[in-house]
Amino acid sequence: MNEIFNKNPSLPEYVGRTVLDTIGLVIPSIDISLREEMNLPDDIRALGIISSRTGAAGQICAVDEAVKNTNATLVSVELPRDTKGWGGHGNYIVVGGRDVSDVKRAVEIALELTERNAGEVYINSAGHLEFAYSASAGEALAMAFVAQIGKAFGFMAGSPAAIGLVMADKALKSADVRLIRYMTPDRGTSHSNEVIIAFTGDAEAVKTAVLTAREIGLELICALGEYPSGPSVPYLQ
Amino acid sequence: MNEIFNKNPSLPEYVGRTVLDTIGLVIPSIDISLREEMNLPDDIRALGIISSRTGAAGQICAVDEAVKNTNATLVSVELPRDTKGWGGHGNYIVVGGRDVSDVKRAVEIALELTERNAGEVYINSAGHLEFAYSASAGEALAMAFVAQIGKAFGFMAGSPAAIGLVMADKALKSADVRLIRYMTPDRGTSHSNEVIIAFTGDAEAVKTAVLTAREIGLELICALGEYPSGPSVPYLQ
Amino acid sequence: MNEIFNKNPSLPEYVGRTVLDTIGLVIPSIDISLREEMNLPDDIRALGIISSRTGAAGQICAVDEAVKNTNATLVSVELPRDTKGWGGHGNYIVVGGRDVSDVKRAVEIALELTERNAGEVYINSAGHLEFAYSASAGEALAMAFVAQIGKAFGFMAGSPAAIGLVMADKALKSADVRLIRYMTPDRGTSHSNEVIIAFTGDAEAVKTAVLTAREIGLELICALGEYPSGPSVPYLQ
Repeated sequence: MNEIFNKNPSLPEYVGRTVLDTIGLVIPSIDISLREEMNLPDDIRALGIISSRTGAAGQICAVDEAVKNTNATLVSVELPRDTKGWGGHGNYIVVGGRDVSDVKRAVEIALELTERNAGEVYINSAGHLEFAYSASAGEALAMAFVAQIGKAFGFMAGSPAAIGLVMADKALKSADVRLIRYMTPDRGTSHSNEVIIAFTGDAEAVKTAVLTAREIGLELICALGEYPSGPSVPYLQ
Repeated sequence: MNEIFNKNPSLPEYVGRTVLDTIGLVIPSIDISLREEMNLPDDIRALGIISSRTGAAGQICAVDEAVKNTNATLVSVELPRDTKGWGGHGNYIVVGGRDVSDVKRAVEIALELTERNAGEVYINSAGHLEFAYSASAGEALAMAFVAQIGKAFGFMAGSPAAIGLVMADKALKSADVRLIRYMTPDRGTSHSNEVIIAFTGDAEAVKTAVLTAREIGLELICALGEYPSGPSVPYLQ
Repeated sequence: MNEIFNKNPSLPEYVGRTVLDTIGLVIPSIDISLREEMNLPDDIRALGIISSRTGAAGQICAVDEAVKNTNATLVSVELPRDTKGWGGHGNYIVVGGRDVSDVKRAVEIALELTERNAGEVYINSAGHLEFAYSASAGEALAMAFVAQIGKAFGFMAGSPAAIGLVMADKALKSADVRLIRYMTPDRGTSHSNEVIIAFTGDAEAVKTAVLTAREIGLELICALGEYPSGPSVPYLQ
């Protein structure tokens, strides 16, 4: 059986893969009983799907950009309790459109940006950190983190959760930003071992807060283990 | 301390073990305060317990047959978020009876069938798939997945979740089956990174749908990693 | 970037680390928007935070003692679904006080006792067990497990969950104790693969019940794997 499979499936539903066990798929015309369960609006026939074992904000930001730049619209964002044995989330994001070409393009863009955004996922033997920044939040960030559309958006997560709270405190004090989402193991997460915050403000202030959280998070996570690596190159500066 | 323990406990509660870190145990007469917390009916004194770190439908199908073939009845089916670092479920299933002999026989049958059913659990470095089929659903499948008792039952799960949705779409279109359960990270699961469906119909149609889901799932999961292995031999055909 | 970090952060928020990926941190004066989200009383300005990837009752007992012996008070206890790939919980515990010196002392005590209490965490390749005992429960045990303040407190957890139920049954029958908390994958846990109970009674009876659960749990978990090890030395006897 083994030999009939290879790393590049011929299945038309397959769009591509990238880091963090992320797969991008499309469904040209979703089955009618699934359509009902998903409460899809009438004008959506084609679906695009992105999901990963590890990461949340990076992939959501990637889909956020993908939706802005195509005719696809956002259907749902879910955050399973995953990260391949670590204390955080994976993701399962569905976009929709009238035609498969719309959603396919969105999935392609999302896969590309997921690779870049994964540069801000830091994992060591003890825990993990994740950061994200958008100069202008769109539909996906609004759905997932109550971001205001068109405004700058910052995100940070730290695990074990205690590290996240200190990062959050330092980030919020470092610049004139406004807290829009506060998540803990029992609040808003899927019982992950993280404190997560999202915030808004002027673009510069938001970026300062994200970079402050990153500096603090890296220092603290190194107290528990080696310097964390990630699957891509850090890109926020 | 070490030397007093061995792989075959002498404890009368121990029935046996099998693949997927599955253990089978009995309690001849459950403690009265636990009985109250569990809301057990008066005629149940003895409990049989099956649980595993990995797998859901295979063990539930195994208990389903065990209950059909003994005087044990089903008490509860719970699906912890587990799979030993993967994105799915483990299981914790309790059956009850008047006498310990009834539940012990049920646990023995469930352990045997769990080994066979584990042939339809596929795990690679990126994710996992699980499949199940019953020609005639019983109490356990009804409780866990709203199966209609006496009807054919099909089950598939795919992780990362995007793979599960494409499997589900293809399965439902491949044969004249009816969707009875649709589960996602935020819906019906314990925040697992899966899309899961259960369906019914004529026996041939249900089996066709399961085999279609398996073919698609194996092709997609191989895009993210090596050909998946499992603890037993695939048995559905 | 790597070289600027080391195992002993100079950050004033850092208090210390210990086994089970436990970190202890303080925040001298919590950010005002976080204060609101956390619903902190007016007289709490400083926070102390303990969190770990693995373990629940051991760290809660440690904080319980820390709060008794300092001017810190308990703010929150949360149990993420973690254990680094195993089927249990991690922890995220926040204490508060008027001054950072109060909470810092509490965090130091909690870290010390966490190391000792970790002697009653047992992990093998298949599952894990955890035990805890307090001669006199305080605020943290009351908040987490409905313990009665001032009374003896016993705790046991077993994973896979079936093992936990047999341990619970044997423990409750072994001595004159009263069940105060019963938790399963779907009830009271964060979908962990455990049965957990907490109980009270005379100090001797509570300890007998804990030791009975430990003996049974070790025998059963050895049926699935090797003799379990832990990060510290068992201390209950």
